[in-house]
Amino acid sequence: MRYTVRVINTDASMPQGEALLDAVGTAFARLRRRTMQAPVDPPVGPKDLKRNLVLNIVDEATEVDTEMTVGGLADHLLVDPSVASRMVSDCISHGYLIRAASQQDGRRTVLHLTEEGTALLSRFRHQQRQAFEYITRDWPEAERLEFARLLLKYSDSTAKLPAPGTSNRPPLPPVA
Amino acid sequence: MRYTVRVINTDASMPQGEALLDAVGTAFARLRRRTMQAPVDPPVGPKDLKRNLVLNIVDEATEVDTEMTVGGLADHLLVDPSVASRMVSDCISHGYLIRAASQQDGRRTVLHLTEEGTALLSRFRHQQRQAFEYITRDWPEAERLEFARLLLKYSDSTAKLPAPGTSNRPPLPPVA
Repeated sequence: MRYTVRVINTDASMPQGEALLDAVGTAFARLRRRTMQAPVDPPVGPKDLKRNLVLNIVDEATEVDTEMTVGGLADHLLVDPSVASRMVSDCISHGYLIRAASQQDGRRTVLHLTEEGTALLSRFRHQQRQAFEYITRDWPEAERLEFARLLLKYSDSTAKLPAPGTSNRPPLPPVA
Repeated sequence: MRYTVRVINTDASMPQGEALLDAVGTAFARLRRRTMQAPVDPPVGPKDLKRNLVLNIVDEATEVDTEMTVGGLADHLLVDPSVASRMVSDCISHGYLIRAASQQDGRRTVLHLTEEGTALLSRFRHQQRQAFEYITRDWPEAERLEFARLLLKYSDSTAKLPAPGTSNRPPLPPVA
């Protein structure tokens, strides 16, 4: 409970704002991992979680019209290519992904979600919603929805960032 | 930009509240991964990200007075024990972790952060703060701090959840 900080003023230059911003990194580290520890129905096993990581990244690439390869997945997941390859094979053998030829480079094989993959993803999102509702069950309704709104706004704001492995990063902003 | 949803009312039974809650799962999937795509100084490499995953989990266990083994790490990270073991060896050889005897079970080896490990973690948290500030650079200051506050509140709320692999889960809440 180290991070229970109450904000009275909302100026980042004040100590409370500073403490909040400093603790954000720890919160991010815990967020997704811990969310899936909440009881949901049907329960989510480690295999489902792994598949979901893979399917989410393929889905996200499709959404912004980019192609996702096994190597790209390994970069996103921070795992060795051989580990990414095993995760992809598992998804393919269960019918959640298919391999297809790249439309941009004939030598490349890219990944696509199948209908079953899309259905699994949507089932998983429903479980994540359940987990979120469970974790915030004692929160005032307005605060819970405000948090959901800000999460999505943040997710939107990150959409403009360069993909991992891209070298054309924007210049670092001046330190506030 | 699929998830840019504006909330006018804050009642979860209304379609906008519903849409927000449904999109939370997607936002979580992207949050941490994308946050570290923001330009920070010094830049964060894939090795740093992996080490940080490991050190965060060891730190979190210490905080709640539990012991973390290589097997426990594998459960938290959703990787095979052999992969977790390689990640731990890397952290040990770089001086960020040490092995120690469990105080609860003499046959078990547990992991502890070294001073260098703690310093790396705090450097990483500073980079995550930079990334957060970069991503939210166009947000009104009050909204950015409100989001930081709610992130920490959520992180606190998840602290009461059972650890992965624990079978004594609380009963599922009634569907709202």
